[in-house]
Amino acid sequence: MNTPFYERLRTAQRTNDSLVCVGLDTDPSRLPSSLQSQTDAVVEFNRKIIDATHDLVCAYKLNLAFYEALGDRCWDTIHRTLQYIPQEVVTIADAKRGDIGNTATMYARSMFDDFQFTATTVNPFMGKDSVAPFLVNPARGTFVLALTSNPGARDFQYMRFNKKPLYEHIAARVKKWNAKKNCGLVVGATRSRELQRLRAIVPQMPFLIPGVGTQGGNLRSAVRYGCDKHGAIAVINASRSVLYASAGDDFADAARDAVISLRAEINILRAKYFKK
Amino acid sequence: MNTPFYERLRTAQRTNDSLVCVGLDTDPSRLPSSLQSQTDAVVEFNRKIIDATHDLVCAYKLNLAFYEALGDRCWDTIHRTLQYIPQEVVTIADAKRGDIGNTATMYARSMFDDFQFTATTVNPFMGKDSVAPFLVNPARGTFVLALTSNPGARDFQYMRFNKKPLYEHIAARVKKWNAKKNCGLVVGATRSRELQRLRAIVPQMPFLIPGVGTQGGNLRSAVRYGCDKHGAIAVINASRSVLYASAGDDFADAARDAVISLRAEINILRAKYFKK
Repeated sequence: MNTPFYERLRTAQRTNDSLVCVGLDTDPSRLPSSLQSQTDAVVEFNRKIIDATHDLVCAYKLNLAFYEALGDRCWDTIHRTLQYIPQEVVTIADAKRGDIGNTATMYARSMFDDFQFTATTVNPFMGKDSVAPFLVNPARGTFVLALTSNPGARDFQYMRFNKKPLYEHIAARVKKWNAKKNCGLVVGATRSRELQRLRAIVPQMPFLIPGVGTQGGNLRSAVRYGCDKHGAIAVINASRSVLYASAGDDFADAARDAVISLRAEINILRAKYFKK
Repeated sequence: MNTPFYERLRTAQRTNDSLVCVGLDTDPSRLPSSLQSQTDAVVEFNRKIIDATHDLVCAYKLNLAFYEALGDRCWDTIHRTLQYIPQEVVTIADAKRGDIGNTATMYARSMFDDFQFTATTVNPFMGKDSVAPFLVNPARGTFVLALTSNPGARDFQYMRFNKKPLYEHIAARVKKWNAKKNCGLVVGATRSRELQRLRAIVPQMPFLIPGVGTQGGNLRSAVRYGCDKHGAIAVINASRSVLYASAGDDFADAARDAVISLRAEINILRAKYFKK
């Protein structure tokens, strides 16, 4: 898979006519009771979700915290989940790593060489040399946290330096770091005005946008400002609202219905704003 | 182990009369050739380092990136290394995690409940709700990144908001979050003046100080400003300068010698500045 990352993402979005990313943040304690007793319950659950949604999404995002909490089954569960995802769908390691250069190299090796994720998320707090090791291969994408969807985003991300908030400085830096055209930004859907400002700074960069489901983000601005001028490249993530759309044994059907609705809502907005 | 974290750390420092933390950032490609062929080479290497140094240190810090890069042997290698560390020595998961609340809870579970680390490092970029889940148990410590030792620290950590740099704002916030007296800060030894400023903001908070070895930080100010007024509580980390003090089969003896020297240098400075 040596396709440059942006092209890979665009192809995935075209193939299924979808900007939807399903977040496989699978919490063992929230599985339907029929699965709870199985040893590989998380793998089984993920496979059923993938079966039910793979023709409707552009990407799956695995939040690594949920897998690390599985202890000795972590590595195997991630691997078997990834193996089950069709090649044309992008896979994102939501890991938010960030560390000094030689350590970041180790993390990049784990995400891209061992697990073979298409992309990952990173934390920019430690600056350029903590992000650079992830950017070596143009086929692998890196979404840098710019403005997150949680309440704590207010603590530091809005602090103003030279009249601009930290998240805008981050976007401007990532634009400079993007020599291989494999950078993206993470921008919470709970931040409409800020999405617009960030889109103006980096008109063509993919945005990974969490927070449209359970976190109550604004889908309209996620589409309008998350997309480039062609109405593409936004990756709009829903996790809990898809995975747990039903608590019963019909969870996979309910997940499919939830993704069909979300994709349709998004595509109506794309048609409206971008005259597809 | 329900001893409050600060007390646990002080006891560990007193027991071995040491502020030294050895960073077990074990890189399989840098092991002596006699170990390279073994299946459990990293565990074997770590055990020999622990055998050679456990009576000279207050803590071991495991950089999780180096373990994650081991793939399916990650979990087992961490567990077996931790099991080998004597109970009285503090263990730190250098993970630098940071994510929204429900995800941070998963990471905290992995670090503290599964692996049973005494402490961890976290990234403050996402604010209070991303750190709070780590602070629940007073017996578990959390070192929040304030100012890091790498060149990229210049990119964002020095940005000034209301005339104060970001890292000082972080220290002031962590001081507020420290209701259970289990917070610390990560401050690079490459930053003397800044260490002094940070110590003034949080006079009694433990500082985890990387960068005194290979990264060329200033040991003098690490001791002078890393310590509280009793000449304690600083955790001064050396990784590569200890682990790879010799590339040959005498690596464990060389590691012991490196730690003896570092501990002695630190204790001379403690005697000088704090009249022990």
